[in-house]
Amino acid sequence: MNNFSFHNPVKIHFGKSQITEKLSHEVEAYSKIMLCYGGGSIKNNGIYNKVIDALKTKDILEFGGIEANPDYETLMKAVELARNESVDFILAVGGGSVIDGVKFIAAATYYNDGDPWEILSKRVKFTKTLPFGTVLTLPATGSEMNSNAVISRKSTNEKLDFSNPNSFPVFSILDPETMYSLPDTQISNGIIDSFIHVIEQYLTYPVNAPIQDRFAESILRTLIEEGPKLLKNRNDYDTNANLMWASTMALNGLLRCGVPEDWSTHMIGHEITALFGIDHAKTLAIVLPGVLTVLQDVKKQKLLQYGLKVWNINGNDENSIEEIIDVTEGYFQRLGVRTRLKDYKINVHDINKICKRLEDRGYVELGENKNISPDLVRKILESRL
Amino acid sequence: MNNFSFHNPVKIHFGKSQITEKLSHEVEAYSKIMLCYGGGSIKNNGIYNKVIDALKTKDILEFGGIEANPDYETLMKAVELARNESVDFILAVGGGSVIDGVKFIAAATYYNDGDPWEILSKRVKFTKTLPFGTVLTLPATGSEMNSNAVISRKSTNEKLDFSNPNSFPVFSILDPETMYSLPDTQISNGIIDSFIHVIEQYLTYPVNAPIQDRFAESILRTLIEEGPKLLKNRNDYDTNANLMWASTMALNGLLRCGVPEDWSTHMIGHEITALFGIDHAKTLAIVLPGVLTVLQDVKKQKLLQYGLKVWNINGNDENSIEEIIDVTEGYFQRLGVRTRLKDYKINVHDINKICKRLEDRGYVELGENKNISPDLVRKILESRL
Repeated sequence: MNNFSFHNPVKIHFGKSQITEKLSHEVEAYSKIMLCYGGGSIKNNGIYNKVIDALKTKDILEFGGIEANPDYETLMKAVELARNESVDFILAVGGGSVIDGVKFIAAATYYNDGDPWEILSKRVKFTKTLPFGTVLTLPATGSEMNSNAVISRKSTNEKLDFSNPNSFPVFSILDPETMYSLPDTQISNGIIDSFIHVIEQYLTYPVNAPIQDRFAESILRTLIEEGPKLLKNRNDYDTNANLMWASTMALNGLLRCGVPEDWSTHMIGHEITALFGIDHAKTLAIVLPGVLTVLQDVKKQKLLQYGLKVWNINGNDENSIEEIIDVTEGYFQRLGVRTRLKDYKINVHDINKICKRLEDRGYVELGENKNISPDLVRKILESRL
Repeated sequence: MNNFSFHNPVKIHFGKSQITEKLSHEVEAYSKIMLCYGGGSIKNNGIYNKVIDALKTKDILEFGGIEANPDYETLMKAVELARNESVDFILAVGGGSVIDGVKFIAAATYYNDGDPWEILSKRVKFTKTLPFGTVLTLPATGSEMNSNAVISRKSTNEKLDFSNPNSFPVFSILDPETMYSLPDTQISNGIIDSFIHVIEQYLTYPVNAPIQDRFAESILRTLIEEGPKLLKNRNDYDTNANLMWASTMALNGLLRCGVPEDWSTHMIGHEITALFGIDHAKTLAIVLPGVLTVLQDVKKQKLLQYGLKVWNINGNDENSIEEIIDVTEGYFQRLGVRTRLKDYKINVHDINKICKRLEDRGYVELGENKNISPDLVRKILESRL
């Protein structure tokens, strides 16, 4: 096992009625609260009313309209509002996009040394943020219990991430009943996103870390068992709850303790979303089978372990590896997600654009072994046409 | 899955050389540090020197001699010292006893409303503690990453626990190399303690919580695989590391999220330690097989799941359950721990004393179903003669 540090101070309230039971207590210390949300679906499913009711003694400022792949220009409007109105707390109500957006707003409000875009483009470290909490309505990114965010800038077709120890939510409220009204496609995207978060921290090379490996396999198997079940019966409370908790545990810092991490599928996927507007999870479902196929030699030991422990595929040759990658891709398809570039009308010329952008960004050593060059990215993507 | 709240703000630094690399930075904000430790073994194995070296710019006050099953009278001397000398931080260097003792010292220093023993005897809630950190030298209790403590009072043969959201360490440094010099018996005690921490949060009744169940099984299987391996090869770094991390994860609040908890084995075990001075883990190894035997009907579903997932025992009748309990007891014995009351010279008359004390304390509804009466405790203990 490698050395590591772990710190996750997020307070979680999980279960039925937690908005009503816990939210007002958690914001007691604050007076002027900026309520951030997305396209407004929370106004149709009752969540907005529950939140407003819990905040009724507070001075509330609303900022709606944070889009999927939250946009820098939108978020900067919220930053201006937070600064002008002396907001002392932000509440994010939504999925990963809203929460990531709020992480950026919370940091940028106190960022006075230059253009806040530098937090992303130059990965400038900041030391102060506005405190914020979340009410999660869509499990997928794990943002409710980590300090990472991914922000887009449509004007330049960019999608970049940051991570900062000051960017943890103070609290997150996870009520699985908020999932009932989500479209199927957001459910399947969320499951695939969570699945590949685990894979990025697991499917690398062995370092003798059985707790981390067994935990990763635990989450993968739960996603495999519960995911298709949920799509068949969307209002089963326990299935929603199990997927919500699996998704949070998939990216809260625990799995990465003391093990190597890959993240090449994410880095490549981000460029595809930025260039072609394809859902984040769908880009991952496209790219991952290519990464596993092209990198199968260096990933062999963990690939076979994954096959055995997660899919009960017992074997140690090339055919087994092919089978393991096939069942993984088949699982994404069973969740209703198409997994080939051509399904999204992306062709061989587009691959050049993706590779060039990674190269321009200096991302020329991706993966746990820092050996995925732009040439290998091309090979990965060509295998996914 | 049941509703739950989870909050664990402890910062963990795990691995080789972490005392040297991380300690001085973590105590930067404090000036007068009380260094608490046990019988002085840290002076023989080099840990004391590393700690003193990391604290060299600080004003240090030493308080050694915190015993196994830390005693109220001893700890109150440290409380007096902390008050008189205006200590602003406590560093616990040791295992669960030292860390639990420091949790009590940290709380009692600011407890001015009466006798601090009330924190235990009346479970009085307190709101302020001295901040403290830990350097773990013996994995077992999980105290390095939770807010629980168990304190004894030899003058009255009592052993009581408390838990408080203000009693988390600020940080804990876990260097597996500190385990090299431990006696075998402390290693095996630590493994059994960790194992039964998991069992108390797992072997109850099903609530459809696969993430929690798979995580529990992950830790149990790791303890089963790595435990005997460590006793054969005490200086293998990875084996020490895996057991240390397993032990911390066994009782940091994660496994109990949304599931029922038992803890009857611990409650009965504490009385045996208080009355007869037997090591905590050994009392658990004695009591657990009795609890599982006597409660096998209400625990049947989880017992069979435990047998299948942890021990690969496939069956659903009484014989399977007997086999599952037998292999569990056999595992404790393979770790070198004797599992019968008679092995410790405890007889049928002593059982009366144990039951009477539980009854006097009002602990008459133990277990996840609150159905373990003093009569059932007697039956459990009689099955362990």
